[in-house]
Amino acid sequence: MNVKMMGRFIAQIIAIEAVFMVPALGISLGYGEWPGVQAFAVTIGIMLILAAIMYALCRKADRLFGAREGLVCVALSWIVMSLLGALPFVLSGQVKSYIDALFEIVSGFTTTGSSVIADVESLYRGILYWRSFSHWVGGMGVLVFLLAILPGSQGSGFTMHLLRAESPGPDVGKLVPKMRQTALILYCIYIVLTIVNVVFLLCGRMHWLDALCTAFGTAGTGGFGVYNDSLGSVSPYIQKVTTVFMFLFGINFSCYYLLLLGKLKSVFKDEELRLYVGLAVASVIALVLSIRPLYATLEETIRHAAFQVSSIMTTTGYTTTDYDLWPAFSKGILLLLMIVGACAGSTGGGLKCIRVLLLFKALRRNIRQILNPRKVLVVRSNGKPVNEKVLENTNAYLAAYVIIIVLCTLILSLDGFSFETNLSATLATFNNIGPGMAAVGPTCNFSSYSALSKLTMTLAMLAGRLEIFPILVLFSRSTWNKK
Amino acid sequence: MNVKMMGRFIAQIIAIEAVFMVPALGISLGYGEWPGVQAFAVTIGIMLILAAIMYALCRKADRLFGAREGLVCVALSWIVMSLLGALPFVLSGQVKSYIDALFEIVSGFTTTGSSVIADVESLYRGILYWRSFSHWVGGMGVLVFLLAILPGSQGSGFTMHLLRAESPGPDVGKLVPKMRQTALILYCIYIVLTIVNVVFLLCGRMHWLDALCTAFGTAGTGGFGVYNDSLGSVSPYIQKVTTVFMFLFGINFSCYYLLLLGKLKSVFKDEELRLYVGLAVASVIALVLSIRPLYATLEETIRHAAFQVSSIMTTTGYTTTDYDLWPAFSKGILLLLMIVGACAGSTGGGLKCIRVLLLFKALRRNIRQILNPRKVLVVRSNGKPVNEKVLENTNAYLAAYVIIIVLCTLILSLDGFSFETNLSATLATFNNIGPGMAAVGPTCNFSSYSALSKLTMTLAMLAGRLEIFPILVLFSRSTWNKK
Repeated sequence: MNVKMMGRFIAQIIAIEAVFMVPALGISLGYGEWPGVQAFAVTIGIMLILAAIMYALCRKADRLFGAREGLVCVALSWIVMSLLGALPFVLSGQVKSYIDALFEIVSGFTTTGSSVIADVESLYRGILYWRSFSHWVGGMGVLVFLLAILPGSQGSGFTMHLLRAESPGPDVGKLVPKMRQTALILYCIYIVLTIVNVVFLLCGRMHWLDALCTAFGTAGTGGFGVYNDSLGSVSPYIQKVTTVFMFLFGINFSCYYLLLLGKLKSVFKDEELRLYVGLAVASVIALVLSIRPLYATLEETIRHAAFQVSSIMTTTGYTTTDYDLWPAFSKGILLLLMIVGACAGSTGGGLKCIRVLLLFKALRRNIRQILNPRKVLVVRSNGKPVNEKVLENTNAYLAAYVIIIVLCTLILSLDGFSFETNLSATLATFNNIGPGMAAVGPTCNFSSYSALSKLTMTLAMLAGRLEIFPILVLFSRSTWNKK
Repeated sequence: MNVKMMGRFIAQIIAIEAVFMVPALGISLGYGEWPGVQAFAVTIGIMLILAAIMYALCRKADRLFGAREGLVCVALSWIVMSLLGALPFVLSGQVKSYIDALFEIVSGFTTTGSSVIADVESLYRGILYWRSFSHWVGGMGVLVFLLAILPGSQGSGFTMHLLRAESPGPDVGKLVPKMRQTALILYCIYIVLTIVNVVFLLCGRMHWLDALCTAFGTAGTGGFGVYNDSLGSVSPYIQKVTTVFMFLFGINFSCYYLLLLGKLKSVFKDEELRLYVGLAVASVIALVLSIRPLYATLEETIRHAAFQVSSIMTTTGYTTTDYDLWPAFSKGILLLLMIVGACAGSTGGGLKCIRVLLLFKALRRNIRQILNPRKVLVVRSNGKPVNEKVLENTNAYLAAYVIIIVLCTLILSLDGFSFETNLSATLATFNNIGPGMAAVGPTCNFSSYSALSKLTMTLAMLAGRLEIFPILVLFSRSTWNKK
């Protein structure tokens, strides 16, 4: 284990986080929220000192860096980022317990959006900004950001391993031969789309800070709202804009790159994108049929159905209506969408459309194999044969996914809530969605769970955002064995 | 597709089912239940005529028989058996709708034990016997029975493919080189264990017919009771006997064969058996801690906890108490046991302990593989390397398992029951357990679901008993394509 290299890397991450916190400090100053100013200033101070010490200790590191270091580095970076990022909540006195603050900031960085704060409108503006900004940082990944701005001194094996570990999806491709440039292109698309989203929101006469926060939550598919009823009482225009942008941020970013290159055909032929769009359209139609009697006009029904589908499927978690009051069938569809999730290579969570596609294809192959035991059958995706290793990893991913859901639900059930509450809380945190159902539904929050449950869900959120394996590797004995 | 061979085979199955129905006819006669006598006589007549016609039509069949025919043959046999076996319920007037009767008999043959009949004590004794006897027939598999008694004229490929398709577990081994003898040994163990169970029940002064029916439900891990409260009001002695025997019938039968051969060591070292016993003991302890305040004495607490664990884990479904009133954590444990299920090669259902073990081991291998990309890592079970094909099939099985549960729950949710009801109804039928939770809990039944939901659950029960693939193959287009 190349500890020094990892230490130096984490020191850089901490320094970047400190820089990211400066705008929040500025906003606190601007609004004259002194406890907020103090909290951010102290936290930034702690971060810079810590980063400097770590960097000094780990300066002389050799460049050997493998998959193991990549995974552990990613997991540790996220944990350290969260431990430090939670400080302003506690230091400003806005959140009483550190466990709650940790839950809140992990929920932010992992773009989950589950909250333990009931009255968000009473929060300091600076804290509100930091809470929402954590979505934006976590959406694309702070390590990817670091790779994009770092000079190319770290070696390509290093960047490759890190990007693989932090980016969602079963198979991370390079857009261009150089990893650093790939990271840069991804971030440029991300920033441009976010700016366009903010402009659209400002056109709807939203306050600039609210627009910024809402766009952060949309871009990162996070879902922390700035109003107590999420987006329930904003204008239909804002709801529609957000529906479209949530959906856009759930698409694989490489599709946008192909679009920029003018390769329209390969975008339209992308099997994952087709499944994503098809499933969304089918779900909206099924929902409209099922909830039509609940709303006055057809326009309102379609608006709420489309918003909720877009929000749940991309694992954002904004809401415009209390879907917990919808009939059982509609809730079943939402639960299905919670599991499937968005596209790989987007900021969304869940199992990811491509994995669902690969699982179905592998299953079909398996049935055909039983029927024709001697044939060699290959699974294809977008016409190209899929590497057997990718299939094996996808299967292992599903197994880990199911095991974590079952265990997490079991631990949560110690608190005595209903089964629907516990399962949906697990799905909502592990798939980085945000609100669940019943006692953790859109109108409620996660504050009534015990500290043990909150820690469990905190870990589940991290495992979900980092796609399980970095966290499993961190806790695996063989990682820490000397060779 | 060798249709004639399949036709001849199914004709034999129907004839055997007719023979199996004779004792029920006898009991109806003995108790003077004339509608029952009539129903069984007419059904037996129909069966014999149908079998004779099919046999005559398909007499000249060549012996070519592959995996495809094996799977289709098993799936069709079970469906035909169920369609005919449901007739006595309707003809005797005891069940009004044919869909309900089909649900009931499929629940019987698949050893599920979910019922649409509220008042079983009012049923004719002959019908009650047939209902419970279907568990015993379905537990070991009627095709296995046919193989055991048929002269060895069918070719070993034939018997191998059939046994593979009907027997539970990821990898069916032969106990002895000859398939027919393996089937015979399995049935002998099955019959002897059942007789011992009946004797124990008779020692508890149970009525001989009740003892027979209860033992059938235990041996097949089915769970149709003869009393309205399942085994809630029988003596503690009978409850304890049933606890032990349910557990025994959930063990891989090859363990008993090894025991007979005196190979104690390899039985105790069997990893699946260890997981099975370990999980049961741990669950009982956790349950006792959780439900202790609900019962007067510690003896009663342990008795109920052990009974429910044994019943749910082996997917039998007898109950001694309304576990739906237990706290959320206890119900979570029961749901976990519902999913895990019994051992492969037993009469129990569920995912099977060995599959859970293999999934965990494959996951661990996968993590190690990420850490050591160049090493070749092999998954071992009981010290022997596991074939990669078996692992691949286990993974595909999990994928199919999850997909079926999600889709089935979604269809059931159309009826508007709570999510807990729908998911537990799916698990209870698909895993062949019997009672679920909430509106399909131990004190309720499945009669309030719509016809569509009942048909869905009927298919789920068949898919669960036949371990998914025969049913998927039956509905797969490539099965029916001409080569």
